[in-house]
Amino acid sequence: MQGVLAPVLTPFDSELNPDPALLLRHCRSLLEEGLTALSPFGTTSEANSLSVEEREALLAALVEGGVPAARLVPGTGCSALSDTVRLTRAAVRAGCAGVLMLPPFYYKNVSEEGLYRSFAGAIDRVGEGRLRVYLYHIPPVSQVGIPLRVIERLLSKYPRTVVGIKDSGGDFENTRAMLRAFPGFEVFVGSEKFLGKNLEEGGAGCITATANVNAAAIARACRERTEDRQREIDRVRSAYEKFPMIPALKETLARRTGNDAWRAVRPPLVELSAEQRSALASALG
Amino acid sequence: MQGVLAPVLTPFDSELNPDPALLLRHCRSLLEEGLTALSPFGTTSEANSLSVEEREALLAALVEGGVPAARLVPGTGCSALSDTVRLTRAAVRAGCAGVLMLPPFYYKNVSEEGLYRSFAGAIDRVGEGRLRVYLYHIPPVSQVGIPLRVIERLLSKYPRTVVGIKDSGGDFENTRAMLRAFPGFEVFVGSEKFLGKNLEEGGAGCITATANVNAAAIARACRERTEDRQREIDRVRSAYEKFPMIPALKETLARRTGNDAWRAVRPPLVELSAEQRSALASALG
Repeated sequence: MQGVLAPVLTPFDSELNPDPALLLRHCRSLLEEGLTALSPFGTTSEANSLSVEEREALLAALVEGGVPAARLVPGTGCSALSDTVRLTRAAVRAGCAGVLMLPPFYYKNVSEEGLYRSFAGAIDRVGEGRLRVYLYHIPPVSQVGIPLRVIERLLSKYPRTVVGIKDSGGDFENTRAMLRAFPGFEVFVGSEKFLGKNLEEGGAGCITATANVNAAAIARACRERTEDRQREIDRVRSAYEKFPMIPALKETLARRTGNDAWRAVRPPLVELSAEQRSALASALG
Repeated sequence: MQGVLAPVLTPFDSELNPDPALLLRHCRSLLEEGLTALSPFGTTSEANSLSVEEREALLAALVEGGVPAARLVPGTGCSALSDTVRLTRAAVRAGCAGVLMLPPFYYKNVSEEGLYRSFAGAIDRVGEGRLRVYLYHIPPVSQVGIPLRVIERLLSKYPRTVVGIKDSGGDFENTRAMLRAFPGFEVFVGSEKFLGKNLEEGGAGCITATANVNAAAIARACRERTEDRQREIDRVRSAYEKFPMIPALKETLARRTGNDAWRAVRPPLVELSAEQRSALASALG
């Protein structure tokens, strides 16, 4: 896989229940704007604020609604191995291109052996040869990263299953180290700010929150690979980085679609204040 | 509530499925040793390594197996509000004395408003007047603490529901600040090392991992409140603190009961190595 993916925002109704119809509409429009694929249930999707059943129901709604499963890479990594196995199996059986797998994120300072067993245990229990796993390295949020040594062990044991990673660590040196250590491993950066650099070094693309609101431009920057295109998408990214990212992205969708429901976030997140809304509008010019 | 509670260890079988019969046996023995109550599904219980269904099934097995629900304070706080509501409602309907509620722990640096809404949203949605909530403050693991200002707002809105806290922050100044700010609030420390101090300042007791292996002595120290008793339990605690706590406690139960199954932990945890086992045996003298 190569290109730009969005960790798709999850819309909620006024009772804070997920809204599958609105999610489906959003997913269709992102694919029409030129994204390679979609990652429902990433960090931006408030995935860990959803129950396993809610995630299963949303994935089923997308597939039944006509989103090609071959263009879906849902997040399936949970704190509980049993949940990770259940969601991963559901994704494989739905025909998804792959899954994006967080390590268990409750315990901190876990050993490499423990991390290795977390992924290996999930892969073994799912027991599906078709499974394709993208590891999800996002230490600023999960506080549990995936060291190179763990990736190396997984690639050696599961060379056809563990195919790539999303590196949301924000440290391109780590991204580069993975690209050099593991030829053929599909390395996606977690922000389009590193897109150009990543492609130059042989990376696969990016899976980025702001693709929810700037899909066409990021997809174009990925195709054209010029400094001008990179600067354009960096400017938009920088504007969003001044705000709590998820509420700011939802605010933009609410304004663009005229649907106030988009503003709803589940706690512990909080929607933008009136002041933040105006500031965001100004920042986006 | 006053006294000593154990966040009960969760036994697994060779497939890493929870073993309700062994859990029941362990719970009965802890109550016989003099603990006030039990907290299944705390950090020590690997609660966040269990699915919601696994937690529901284990709680049902305890109650059906004759553990008085009035002596159970299960952990019910999850990352997803929908999961917290479901587990909390199940606990209330089973007649549990209360619940121990973590804040959502995936997103970091969340706002006070977001934390407040997490707890308030759970309480409102459960909608049970009988509900008694003990907040669970454990920033070293969850990385998301519960500031005094959030407790103050919750006490003001839900004075009969939010009745206490487990403070596993390891900073007695914070414990003392809560005791002084909120008279009548039931403050439990998360380690017996602070038990004497906490009782002296009007605290309610402790909810401590090592109560799984040293229940009678900690319960006695809580009743007798002498420096000698405190020193005895501190010595045991210090020995365990040299090892990964959960695997070390399980190792002790495996040795004492002769049941090797007790050693099993779910990833990302790893059982003690052979060297650690011998070192633990020596440390415990």
